[in-house]
Amino acid sequence: MPTITLLSDFGLRDSYVAQMKAVILSICRKATIVDISHQVERHNLRMGAFILASAAPYFPDRTIHVAVVDPSVGGKRRPILIETSRSIYVGPDNGLLLLAAKSDEIRKVYHIVERRFMAEQISATFHGRDIFAPVAAHIANGVEPSKIGRVVTDFVVPGYSEARIERGAVDCEVVHVDGFGNVVTNLHSRDLGKTVMRYGSGFKLKHKGKTVKLKLCRTYSDVQVGALLGLIGSHGFLEIAINQGSAAKRLAVTQGSKLKLF
Amino acid sequence: MPTITLLSDFGLRDSYVAQMKAVILSICRKATIVDISHQVERHNLRMGAFILASAAPYFPDRTIHVAVVDPSVGGKRRPILIETSRSIYVGPDNGLLLLAAKSDEIRKVYHIVERRFMAEQISATFHGRDIFAPVAAHIANGVEPSKIGRVVTDFVVPGYSEARIERGAVDCEVVHVDGFGNVVTNLHSRDLGKTVMRYGSGFKLKHKGKTVKLKLCRTYSDVQVGALLGLIGSHGFLEIAINQGSAAKRLAVTQGSKLKLF
Amino acid sequence: MPTITLLSDFGLRDSYVAQMKAVILSICRKATIVDISHQVERHNLRMGAFILASAAPYFPDRTIHVAVVDPSVGGKRRPILIETSRSIYVGPDNGLLLLAAKSDEIRKVYHIVERRFMAEQISATFHGRDIFAPVAAHIANGVEPSKIGRVVTDFVVPGYSEARIERGAVDCEVVHVDGFGNVVTNLHSRDLGKTVMRYGSGFKLKHKGKTVKLKLCRTYSDVQVGALLGLIGSHGFLEIAINQGSAAKRLAVTQGSKLKLF
Repeated sequence: MPTITLLSDFGLRDSYVAQMKAVILSICRKATIVDISHQVERHNLRMGAFILASAAPYFPDRTIHVAVVDPSVGGKRRPILIETSRSIYVGPDNGLLLLAAKSDEIRKVYHIVERRFMAEQISATFHGRDIFAPVAAHIANGVEPSKIGRVVTDFVVPGYSEARIERGAVDCEVVHVDGFGNVVTNLHSRDLGKTVMRYGSGFKLKHKGKTVKLKLCRTYSDVQVGALLGLIGSHGFLEIAINQGSAAKRLAVTQGSKLKLF
Repeated sequence: MPTITLLSDFGLRDSYVAQMKAVILSICRKATIVDISHQVERHNLRMGAFILASAAPYFPDRTIHVAVVDPSVGGKRRPILIETSRSIYVGPDNGLLLLAAKSDEIRKVYHIVERRFMAEQISATFHGRDIFAPVAAHIANGVEPSKIGRVVTDFVVPGYSEARIERGAVDCEVVHVDGFGNVVTNLHSRDLGKTVMRYGSGFKLKHKGKTVKLKLCRTYSDVQVGALLGLIGSHGFLEIAINQGSAAKRLAVTQGSKLKLF
Repeated sequence: MPTITLLSDFGLRDSYVAQMKAVILSICRKATIVDISHQVERHNLRMGAFILASAAPYFPDRTIHVAVVDPSVGGKRRPILIETSRSIYVGPDNGLLLLAAKSDEIRKVYHIVERRFMAEQISATFHGRDIFAPVAAHIANGVEPSKIGRVVTDFVVPGYSEARIERGAVDCEVVHVDGFGNVVTNLHSRDLGKTVMRYGSGFKLKHKGKTVKLKLCRTYSDVQVGALLGLIGSHGFLEIAINQGSAAKRLAVTQGSKLKLF
């Protein structure tokens, strides 16, 4: 019973997601299909990459992830398949898949070229339905990734910045604002010890010239309702949050904002 | 392993969709249930019909489609089941199912009357849960459509207008605006050759007295970001789009708008 | 083939729901997972309780319901499992599960403590993924509820008010406003006979000093488009509705509003 996940910026109002599921079930009737998200902001590759990478590690081995945030569909960007030590990723060669794939060990990356594993007619605007979904379904049926196309090494690797720590002070970036308004930074929990931040103690956050004080805690309810806090979120990164409120709104922070913590 | 699809205007916040799934699984545990959309605009039959028809052709043979956009629930409109050459459609007799069913060959249309295939208690306001879902699940279990009710021939056929072409100029209508703001018209790709439009060449679009120029292309990225274009969309119809933008917003076009192309 | 349902206030944009599904499938590959709703208003326990209770009765016996509206996650509130005569409920001990569980017969309530049925690392902010989902999946695999923890009797029971009827006049409360703007009250259909309301006859509704007249009907289309009506909704409670309109908007009513019917 293979598992295939789907991620896109298609939304749930139109039938685009259903068309992909229909194609998959027509080829591999026994696949279990799980939606990761279809509400990635339109063409927001970094958001798509983050959401995919945040979910993929929890899926069973041999899960096939199909992701489509694809502003250049029908143009020159290639369709690719990434084989890692434990999963398969299928989607456009625009960096979307890399963040997730890198958390396993990347074995091989294929440029998808084999026409027989695609739809009979390939539209210029919906490769999710006509290339990625059928390829994923054939892989789920047991087709070897190597049959799908030819190995490439010049695939797109997105250059996301990493948090910098200097004498305990952190220059980091907002990689994601979740639906609650929690602000996920690119400071990983493993690097927390190198910073000035200590559980139960205060630290300062500077954004656009304004400085606020907050405390490093374990969970939201460690502070009063409405109070700001820092915590290691469920993604494993430092999050800035407000107990039962939106830190993103309070701090006027969005994806890509630069924060200084000291 | 039968497949049952669901489409409605219920939204995903309430439990109406889950209630239908629960009823289906209680009767046919092995059914695979796929959502087509539950974000059809409330009571927008044409939008529901379009979205259903855009997804249905991709599903496996013998799929059972349940669709509920049903402003007259509990009134005089009949519950019907349509048997086509490859699928089953279950829903209200208000035209919702016809656009999709017609793309197969319609075999028989039944007025659903058999009480034993419905819920024990039938609410006046939720036939999706009490009639359509259980009927679909019984069909999935192998019940013959002919057991469900009696054949009718006076079912509702919606009178959607078709594009008219005169000396290469097109009078067409907007049948759908998708979540990206792409404007889907009722000009089918097979009629493109009869028009003035040629790939790579410009044409004019007139709407509410305003005329704009655009080019017929194969995909969005064939024009600059922000530029207007025409293309045959993944539905097989002419779409008016903007590369990485919303054509519907730019042109102030909605479902039902009349466009002249020349 | 066990069925596991999910309800939360996580929304569908982030991958939180997908992470829970991934954890479940990693433990119990054959589970059928059904979403009840993930658009419960953030931290709105009463709304979550209502939506869960409105769907649960329709699911097959032995369904496992996981619900997460959890403002105090990581704090002192306990994770619990409720075993009823026909279902299992898993979630926080904050009253969320009780309304649904009470509609069956509650057998036992367990404080979940057994570490081996949880994730290896338990985050302080996402017990849905690290405790509730894995526990549900182990139960789906056949683990006895009694292995999960110890019986408790001091679980949280929410004190929702009940409708009061005096000489036919009703003091009731709005328990839910659905996506259509239908106003669900806490007056159950079985108590309708004790009130002044009769099918086909008018009654008065008073809210915040304003009184309106409306008729008790069987379905929306029993009144003209745009007219107000009362009806027993599909939940089994009195609803105030407008045929093809939003009663909540017209009456300026929200969850918790007090209504007098006479």
